[in-house]
Amino acid sequence: MDWSKDLKPAASANGAEILAQERQRSQINVDRLSHHLFGSAYLERQQRILRILQREKIFSKANQANLSRPDRYFLGLARGKRMRQLMDEHTWNDDDLLMAEYLIDDLQPYHLHMSLFAAAMREQCSEEQRRYWQPKIESWEIIGAYAQTELGHGSNVRGIELEARWDPSTKEFVLHSPTLTASKWWNGTLGRTATHSVVVAQLMLSERNAQGVMEERSVGPRPFIVQVRDKATHQPLDGIIVGDIGPKYGYAPMDNAYMLFCNHRIPHSALLSRYASLDPDTGIYTRPKSSSSVYGQLTRGRSVIVMNARLVIARAVTVAVRYLAIRRQFRDQDSTDPASVETPVLDYSTVQIRILPLLATAFALHYSGSAMRELYERTRSSSTLDGDNAQLAELHSTSAGLKSLATELAANSVETCRRAMGGHGFGGGTGLIQLNNDYLSKPTVEGDNWMITQQVARYLIKKVKERAEAPGADAVSRTEQNLQNFWNDRHTQPCFAVLENDADIVKAFNWRASCMVS
Amino acid sequence: MDWSKDLKPAASANGAEILAQERQRSQINVDRLSHHLFGSAYLERQQRILRILQREKIFSKANQANLSRPDRYFLGLARGKRMRQLMDEHTWNDDDLLMAEYLIDDLQPYHLHMSLFAAAMREQCSEEQRRYWQPKIESWEIIGAYAQTELGHGSNVRGIELEARWDPSTKEFVLHSPTLTASKWWNGTLGRTATHSVVVAQLMLSERNAQGVMEERSVGPRPFIVQVRDKATHQPLDGIIVGDIGPKYGYAPMDNAYMLFCNHRIPHSALLSRYASLDPDTGIYTRPKSSSSVYGQLTRGRSVIVMNARLVIARAVTVAVRYLAIRRQFRDQDSTDPASVETPVLDYSTVQIRILPLLATAFALHYSGSAMRELYERTRSSSTLDGDNAQLAELHSTSAGLKSLATELAANSVETCRRAMGGHGFGGGTGLIQLNNDYLSKPTVEGDNWMITQQVARYLIKKVKERAEAPGADAVSRTEQNLQNFWNDRHTQPCFAVLENDADIVKAFNWRASCMVS
Repeated sequence: MDWSKDLKPAASANGAEILAQERQRSQINVDRLSHHLFGSAYLERQQRILRILQREKIFSKANQANLSRPDRYFLGLARGKRMRQLMDEHTWNDDDLLMAEYLIDDLQPYHLHMSLFAAAMREQCSEEQRRYWQPKIESWEIIGAYAQTELGHGSNVRGIELEARWDPSTKEFVLHSPTLTASKWWNGTLGRTATHSVVVAQLMLSERNAQGVMEERSVGPRPFIVQVRDKATHQPLDGIIVGDIGPKYGYAPMDNAYMLFCNHRIPHSALLSRYASLDPDTGIYTRPKSSSSVYGQLTRGRSVIVMNARLVIARAVTVAVRYLAIRRQFRDQDSTDPASVETPVLDYSTVQIRILPLLATAFALHYSGSAMRELYERTRSSSTLDGDNAQLAELHSTSAGLKSLATELAANSVETCRRAMGGHGFGGGTGLIQLNNDYLSKPTVEGDNWMITQQVARYLIKKVKERAEAPGADAVSRTEQNLQNFWNDRHTQPCFAVLENDADIVKAFNWRASCMVS
Repeated sequence: MDWSKDLKPAASANGAEILAQERQRSQINVDRLSHHLFGSAYLERQQRILRILQREKIFSKANQANLSRPDRYFLGLARGKRMRQLMDEHTWNDDDLLMAEYLIDDLQPYHLHMSLFAAAMREQCSEEQRRYWQPKIESWEIIGAYAQTELGHGSNVRGIELEARWDPSTKEFVLHSPTLTASKWWNGTLGRTATHSVVVAQLMLSERNAQGVMEERSVGPRPFIVQVRDKATHQPLDGIIVGDIGPKYGYAPMDNAYMLFCNHRIPHSALLSRYASLDPDTGIYTRPKSSSSVYGQLTRGRSVIVMNARLVIARAVTVAVRYLAIRRQFRDQDSTDPASVETPVLDYSTVQIRILPLLATAFALHYSGSAMRELYERTRSSSTLDGDNAQLAELHSTSAGLKSLATELAANSVETCRRAMGGHGFGGGTGLIQLNNDYLSKPTVEGDNWMITQQVARYLIKKVKERAEAPGADAVSRTEQNLQNFWNDRHTQPCFAVLENDADIVKAFNWRASCMVS
């Protein structure tokens, strides 16, 4: 006998009606705009995968915010397992899988197995290693993680403390954490789920120094594939302490790890040796040729983040605009009509100046993201993996700058939208709580925003210096071309018809950017 | 056999040692500064209450972030009960209790009973009502809440939809929610805990209109005391639907409510009638004289928020400064010393420009908060409750402006500190997750920041207009005096010795503020 079931919202607060009216007042063809932004392949994929996922009760968000952290993890495991089953059932390709992950909208504990672990193994394994591991990875016979960051070191990878010491007598590496700060930390999927992990450790070798005396030193951090847990009991192997680091701001279903080693022995084959290898018989070490493959991994990760930022802002702005169009508060104080309804909150200029620029930002970031992806694909196809050339340097700088800009804008936009919604913005109905909590990791991961913008500055200063020192040198990248244009014309009065000609806006922007760094 | 127990942090990351060194380099006498800021009574109270609370395991934060939302509520109930026992045991006064709540650092489900419910009953009850209810409130025989905001109305109290219709035949009021948006919403302590609530509803009376015809209309929102749940079974009474609104950004232990009424009858004595009353025999309604008592409640709430903001910033900055002093990352690239240790993150200028101004802000807000409290106390003691005079208007405007400024600064500062700590800022070890999640309600509650700054603008424009229209009129408030000073001297060239004389900084600020609004 629930008499509240028959209640309707107040006449002036009929959301469906208000939204229909608002939409009728717009000239925009939503279908055409969607196709322009995403293309029909993307939209077809989205609809196809969404239909499949909507049938699965396990992906319902209805109760997840009420769960304990352990239960949130178990729900994540179940969702991950179901997604894997659906992937096999429907023979999803990589793009289908990415779309499914995006639509499920919840990080699953297997995520690092599918992303960073798989990518690192693909990139770092020798041919022989790949043949051995690839089938196990694809079938999920093993679940892998990627353990690089430590309690004491994140951004500065060269500073990590975990040691892998070569023991020529047994032809094994000995993994050892000399300090507490050497503990692996933050490594997703490793806290409870993974059986294996790529583990990055300082490779310690004994070599003859300049005086001809044997001396042990690190030849740099290298990746090893390490079994972490027993396949039958799922208990950590002897000499390994591993567990979940506990509560964090977002990503409740993810088991981020701590991991310590006590003289734990791994075979010679554990060293991933596509780029660097150690001869087990002679002990001779072959160094990696260049660091451009690391560049590649980093820029790919950052490109994905830039592309994703527009979707985050778009979601937050969509929620805010719809709610603020329906929500009314206060009658117009100057109105003399006693029957006047309250003003939609979206009609207040103090709300518009906060929300409408973010709507524009979502579109701006869409095109920035596309440009970033084009740059990435053009550079990757024209550059060899081993060459460290001008295009790669520009790609690295651009991806760093845009990653910082896009994540800063997106993270702040979600919070601006949330606050503009007042009390209901603090409630769980908006869907912005988890979006915000999860997304707030983005200004930090894949290069802290404040740190990597300095890399951009360093790159630009270097390029300006090169122009100044050799003004006639070939301008290989776009950055160099822009600087060259400015350098050539810098004594003329700049003149751009920005109001008449869109291309001139870009020229003016290039001029301004070149001028500011020169 | 936990071999990790003997591990130490890396030599360069010994936190205790680093902090001791940093403190040694400072000339500040911490004791003297503490006494200057807080006074000895406050510090004595803090130490005394802290010692008592530290002995109680129930207040440990160790596991709370792992709990489900229902378990978080049960923990809150247990903490609230224990605090009440300690209050009786140690005969705490009101200030002791506030200190205990601050130190426990977790909202308890009984909070609204002790704060808003108790205050509203104190303020709105007639003498007779007070005699009846006060003992029940003090003994917690009943647990009360305060139900004003609704699903459809927050800031605009006059727009609430719940109706209390006077039935002269039975001499009862009939509470009825005509729509879904009339549902009470957000009301703390009411979702699961309270037995009673102050309920604000439109008082509907039938009165003769200008044409002499009987017509039903609202005479405005009025407070009623309503029993919500059965004392024995704790089930909602007939005609009442009440429950918890579900997940929200922060305040996990609090049971915020929705509540709907279906022709629910309450006695005549339910109308809290200190300021407005209804004669049960004649049906004649006596209106409240002025709204200054509402002003009083509002400004008190906002003063408390302003005083609290400095503590929030201080906590976040303290955590950040300590961590960033210990955390090191990257060696100085220009150093030629191979044994050089990594640079403390706090030494990077990109970190200092974010954190050090917030340290200064904590102190600035301390003095703003003190000034706000003084203004509040001076105004309350010199003004009668019923008079709506110049001082009250200034107090209202100042509290609105400072509430908006202080909460905006504090909320943004917590997030700035969190991001400056990089990865570990995303982790649970900082204590900033719950602080942030809880505090993010503050830019919205007690008057949305964007809305109430417009009240400040309206007040200032009104005051400038008064000066322009009657330049010789008495300047009663400080705002009026400042405007008068500017008005008198506005044609002279302003000249303030801000570098030599601190008082001139204030004069210059007053001049600038007056100039900007004039």
